[in-house]
Amino acid sequence: MLSDVRKSNWFSNLTTSVIIGYAVVLGFKTSHQIEVAFEHWWFYLDLVITLYFLIEIVIKISADKKEFFKSGWNIFDFLIVAVTLIPIEESEFMMIARLLRLFRVLRLFNSRPELKNIIDMLIGAIPSIIDIVILMFIIFYVYGVIGSFLFSSLPSGLWSDLLTSMLTLFRVLTFEDWTDVMYEAMELNSLYWIYFVSFIIITAFVFFNLFIAVIIGEMEALREQGKGSMKTTIDEDHKILESVQKELAEVKALLQELKQKE
Amino acid sequence: MLSDVRKSNWFSNLTTSVIIGYAVVLGFKTSHQIEVAFEHWWFYLDLVITLYFLIEIVIKISADKKEFFKSGWNIFDFLIVAVTLIPIEESEFMMIARLLRLFRVLRLFNSRPELKNIIDMLIGAIPSIIDIVILMFIIFYVYGVIGSFLFSSLPSGLWSDLLTSMLTLFRVLTFEDWTDVMYEAMELNSLYWIYFVSFIIITAFVFFNLFIAVIIGEMEALREQGKGSMKTTIDEDHKILESVQKELAEVKALLQELKQKE
Amino acid sequence: MLSDVRKSNWFSNLTTSVIIGYAVVLGFKTSHQIEVAFEHWWFYLDLVITLYFLIEIVIKISADKKEFFKSGWNIFDFLIVAVTLIPIEESEFMMIARLLRLFRVLRLFNSRPELKNIIDMLIGAIPSIIDIVILMFIIFYVYGVIGSFLFSSLPSGLWSDLLTSMLTLFRVLTFEDWTDVMYEAMELNSLYWIYFVSFIIITAFVFFNLFIAVIIGEMEALREQGKGSMKTTIDEDHKILESVQKELAEVKALLQELKQKE
Amino acid sequence: MLSDVRKSNWFSNLTTSVIIGYAVVLGFKTSHQIEVAFEHWWFYLDLVITLYFLIEIVIKISADKKEFFKSGWNIFDFLIVAVTLIPIEESEFMMIARLLRLFRVLRLFNSRPELKNIIDMLIGAIPSIIDIVILMFIIFYVYGVIGSFLFSSLPSGLWSDLLTSMLTLFRVLTFEDWTDVMYEAMELNSLYWIYFVSFIIITAFVFFNLFIAVIIGEMEALREQGKGSMKTTIDEDHKILESVQKELAEVKALLQELKQKE
Repeated sequence: MLSDVRKSNWFSNLTTSVIIGYAVVLGFKTSHQIEVAFEHWWFYLDLVITLYFLIEIVIKISADKKEFFKSGWNIFDFLIVAVTLIPIEESEFMMIARLLRLFRVLRLFNSRPELKNIIDMLIGAIPSIIDIVILMFIIFYVYGVIGSFLFSSLPSGLWSDLLTSMLTLFRVLTFEDWTDVMYEAMELNSLYWIYFVSFIIITAFVFFNLFIAVIIGEMEALREQGKGSMKTTIDEDHKILESVQKELAEVKALLQELKQKE
Repeated sequence: MLSDVRKSNWFSNLTTSVIIGYAVVLGFKTSHQIEVAFEHWWFYLDLVITLYFLIEIVIKISADKKEFFKSGWNIFDFLIVAVTLIPIEESEFMMIARLLRLFRVLRLFNSRPELKNIIDMLIGAIPSIIDIVILMFIIFYVYGVIGSFLFSSLPSGLWSDLLTSMLTLFRVLTFEDWTDVMYEAMELNSLYWIYFVSFIIITAFVFFNLFIAVIIGEMEALREQGKGSMKTTIDEDHKILESVQKELAEVKALLQELKQKE
Repeated sequence: MLSDVRKSNWFSNLTTSVIIGYAVVLGFKTSHQIEVAFEHWWFYLDLVITLYFLIEIVIKISADKKEFFKSGWNIFDFLIVAVTLIPIEESEFMMIARLLRLFRVLRLFNSRPELKNIIDMLIGAIPSIIDIVILMFIIFYVYGVIGSFLFSSLPSGLWSDLLTSMLTLFRVLTFEDWTDVMYEAMELNSLYWIYFVSFIIITAFVFFNLFIAVIIGEMEALREQGKGSMKTTIDEDHKILESVQKELAEVKALLQELKQKE
Repeated sequence: MLSDVRKSNWFSNLTTSVIIGYAVVLGFKTSHQIEVAFEHWWFYLDLVITLYFLIEIVIKISADKKEFFKSGWNIFDFLIVAVTLIPIEESEFMMIARLLRLFRVLRLFNSRPELKNIIDMLIGAIPSIIDIVILMFIIFYVYGVIGSFLFSSLPSGLWSDLLTSMLTLFRVLTFEDWTDVMYEAMELNSLYWIYFVSFIIITAFVFFNLFIAVIIGEMEALREQGKGSMKTTIDEDHKILESVQKELAEVKALLQELKQKE
């Protein structure tokens, strides 16, 4: 009976609705006015949600048994429900309690397969760009060290140490008021525009090629996969043709023998 | 006779010209100087346009009869003409009257098939990105809630409630003075740059993969469609080859029988 | 003899060098200090260049005769040389004289085939985006009219008439301080962010789809072209196979006749 | 024995670790506080690193002998080690000494093959965009000359000479506060927005087409390469089929001869 409930659509839809409803309430709560007006209700709401999530996860575990813990998403769900059961004095660890409320909303992913697919796709795309990330880090690192050596004396404090310099370079990368940063640096030496322009052109060039490489890589994978069945048929045909050619030669030989005999 | 007019090029071109002319006049009217100078003419112009559109749509309906209302674009045209016939006191619902004048210009789409195609293509592209929109909304929602919890006390009021926070995040997404927002937040805690940099990197990564996924998806569709006819020929050839191989074996057998008999 | 000179590499390289040299000098001339220091030389330089270009074009026309005027690039060259021969008092039409000097530098394209190819490619790409340009214009027009109705009273004057409004929208499209424009408008009505956010999302969506459509279109053209020869071979093979099948059936029939006779 | 060390994983990993460790220390050194606190240690650190690099490169050269200098990356490594052995008084050529320290970190590329591949890929991508770079330079040059003629009198000094104008144009290209530049210019003549909008649209169009051209070019190369093996099989099959058809005709002729004889 539990596994009927677990597989039923109304159960999955109810959970989705509860999460969305909770998300909406959490959204309204960011308005200070509403938070104060309904001050006494938040406690009961939290209690109801916690109870619903507890019952829901118990149903799921009872139905799936060992299977339940084989999915990463289920473990994620379980951990969130488990942690929110720990009684936290909101006054002390308010930030943690609030983050947990938010993570509950992330359970939405587990209740919509399409979103789960996109997340899986995004996670699967990470390895293909890992070396570019390393390369970008090296570029940031080198420009960051140069920048913090050259510009550390500037009053804006944008280059005071390596981490700050790399944050400033990230800002330059997004073109966010980067000329203000450049004009300040050019007061030290009017040739320092080379530092900024070269950084922008190099990173743009790296991103451009990353983009091309990923598209081409995906396309190659697609081609290999799609070509498979057609190529198999053509290769099979090639073997048949060769055997036909061979057989025909034998037939011809036989016929010539017959002809000579007569 | 009406259907001759309806199908004729001059009728369709006349309508296009009237709409473009109307659009140009509407454009000039945005200059206050011109609006005042020709104050008395706007009324007559509106009357003439309304009459032309009325006559035009009557001709189209009379010619096409029931067919007319089967096209969404025709219904759109009909509604605009119908609504502009309602006598609206401009002083009261000025905004609505003005919007209706603008919608009349949108009738241009119906008179140029190429534009209609692009609009149809754009509408057709929406489903393929619907899940990405949901995902982006979740990212905005989560960052919005975190942002309005962390930064609601900031004097700029950019994080006063969830909606304002999400608007601020949209601004960060467009890189529009996002460092001003970040530097203000970093006065609370110098580690808050992580919030902004992670938001930018995550959304950029999602958009990047969306882009790749759409290109690859379109390409796969194209490939499937294009491969069709060639694959059919190759599969047919495979069947013929197999039958040829079988027949040839029979021929060989027959010949060997003949040879033994002699 | 003239046609030997015209076809020779040194002649083409000399022209390229003269143009590049002229471009460099024109570049230095933008520095006021240098312009004043060498004041008396500019006149002689212009004279020498004008004479060289005159001699060069005479050689080309004498060598190519009627063929010369069949290339658009040659006509472009000819017009520039012809117009710069007209004696212009620099004090009167200074701007025109300066523009003509610049157009001379554009003759560089005609002396490098690779650049000519890129320009031809770029010109050839225009028709494929013409309808998108019309669509973008309609979007700009509609938002421009709405904007100049709603925001014309704002003190910044960014929406004073239609043209100014469209320029402001172009600025919003480039994300250039667009929030300043939005925050000013939101002082009239806090819901006006919808105007800006919808404009950005709609134009981004249109550009995104334009991009995809162009890539897919190019790829389809490439596929059609590339598939040609392979498809021809496969179709030919199909016909041969069918005739082989038919012939084999005849051979079998003949053999069976032979067998029955014995 | 040396070649065992040279090929061993621990040796390559040790070098990588030393470089990363050195990079981290260099990073901390950008914080002024830390630099002063450990003032006396930097000298010894530099000595240790220099010695390690010296020993490492001696091992590599001894093991590889002549082969060592055939790789560009090895020569790069060698030069860095060699130059850092020259005793430089830091007070005099501080900048050079610091740059050399940084270049040492770039040796990281040589110890990770994936990064080496990406760098090779990036270098290989340069020729395919060289003509676009020339074209972009011409556009910048022409707009730069026009800009410095038209706007040189502006108080911001953004157009004082050609180089400054081109830097300002690069700023406009990145959309960085480009409207400030435009609004200042429009005070001279309200039509000067055409200069900026046309520059943005032209460069965007060139980049857009560059992007498409590179993707299509890569795809074509991929197709040619991938089509190879399949096309070979199909062409081979075509020859076999023709010979089969010919042989079958001969068999049929033989049979008809046989039949007539009887």
